Amino acid sequence: MHIEVIANIGEARSDEYLNKTVIVVDVLRATSTIITALMNGCREVIPVETVIKAKECARRGDLLGGERYCKKIPGFDLGNSPIEYTREAVEGRRIILTTTNGTRGIQKAIKADHVLAGALLNGRAAAAAAIELKRDTVIVCAGTQDVFSLEDGLCAGLLLDEIASQLGEASMQTNDFGLAMRSCYHESKDRLLDTILASSNGKKMKKSGFLADVELCAQCNLFDCVPILEQDHMIPYLR
Amino acid sequence: MHIEVIANIGEARSDEYLNKTVIVVDVLRATSTIITALMNGCREVIPVETVIKAKECARRGDLLGGERYCKKIPGFDLGNSPIEYTREAVEGRRIILTTTNGTRGIQKAIKADHVLAGALLNGRAAAAAAIELKRDTVIVCAGTQDVFSLEDGLCAGLLLDEIASQLGEASMQTNDFGLAMRSCYHESKDRLLDTILASSNGKKMKKSGFLADVELCAQCNLFDCVPILEQDHMIPYLR
Repeated sequence: MHIEVIANIGEARSDEYLNKTVIVVDVLRATSTIITALMNGCREVIPVETVIKAKECARRGDLLGGERYCKKIPGFDLGNSPIEYTREAVEGRRIILTTTNGTRGIQKAIKADHVLAGALLNGRAAAAAAIELKRDTVIVCAGTQDVFSLEDGLCAGLLLDEIASQLGEASMQTNDFGLAMRSCYHESKDRLLDTILASSNGKKMKKSGFLADVELCAQCNLFDCVPILEQDHMIPYLR
Repeated sequence: MHIEVIANIGEARSDEYLNKTVIVVDVLRATSTIITALMNGCREVIPVETVIKAKECARRGDLLGGERYCKKIPGFDLGNSPIEYTREAVEGRRIILTTTNGTRGIQKAIKADHVLAGALLNGRAAAAAAIELKRDTVIVCAGTQDVFSLEDGLCAGLLLDEIASQLGEASMQTNDFGLAMRSCYHESKDRLLDTILASSNGKKMKKSGFLADVELCAQCNLFDCVPILEQDHMIPYLR
């Protein structure tokens, strides 16, 4: 199984996704939020690129969620904090979500055979799903405005580690960027929260009052839920 | 001192180099070769982008060096193996060098205040030179055909480590990609050769009969020589 790791959405070429599984990773915070929402019983999450598109998609009873510049969008029900997506808030609901990087990464992956949402929160489960789907896999670190984000790279490292341990080391190959991210994860895994708090997004989140989000999103393998894209909406992947 | 690390030449924007020092890193093999050549008494190295340009530049007594697809160019005196650039071969000579990635990285950095050549071989000395030049610094990992190469990332990690240890940890800041490369270097520094041999270029070099080059280029801080660009030619930086 070949796993290509891509450093940011700007580097992603959607034609290279043909016949593959793509795992989109946006640890802070889009994919962590989608995972948490589905884990808490939300019916489906529809990732869209623009605020206008989000409003057009929303039907009665839907929740509008998302952020611009880390902040909740005026008139929306929810921001992009996974801790807002409690069972009370989301159970049984459909959520239209628009964020700056993560939802764009998902849209760009639409030509792939399968699109999964990965984060530290569901690393082990996302790795297991990718193995079951039996395709070469591309891990897209969403990054921030086409620039690499450390927390997404650490998650790529976790995913590679989990795939290698579940599939056997000899059955997994990766590119040089994947090798680097795996090393980086190994070096940091015993102090992931501190490492993420030293990164560009980690510092920004803490300064903006979102420390609790970072603390949640820095935890590995907390949830078994793996969001998978079906047409235009994400639902839990069922094994 | 802010150190920006860039993953490959394709990502480098030459306008962002204004007023800065750029360290171009192409461990396998262009910058390792330039360092070795100058260390062995070659007078200057002129990096050029094309074979035609190299031939046009060459005057009587000059040596033509370089590679295409890892192989020596027909009619050239030397390939791109640092071990060919012995004192016997290069002392007192001017060398015109063209390689696929490294020389392109140097050409692209021409708007910077200072352009240095860095490799594992001269990491400590290159870090010291960058500190002395008192500019914010960009480390450009040359990569291979606009794709990240692990050995260049490891060298970026060594350079960051050396700058932090010479300048003091609190006086150096880096971007997320720099943080990742530093972690990756820490994780691999006790087995750099094996790590590089598992990378894309490492495997390719070994298969093409260049294992001795990889063994030389994987050594840290072997030489004090730091090539610096003066107009169109590289000479040793003198402290």
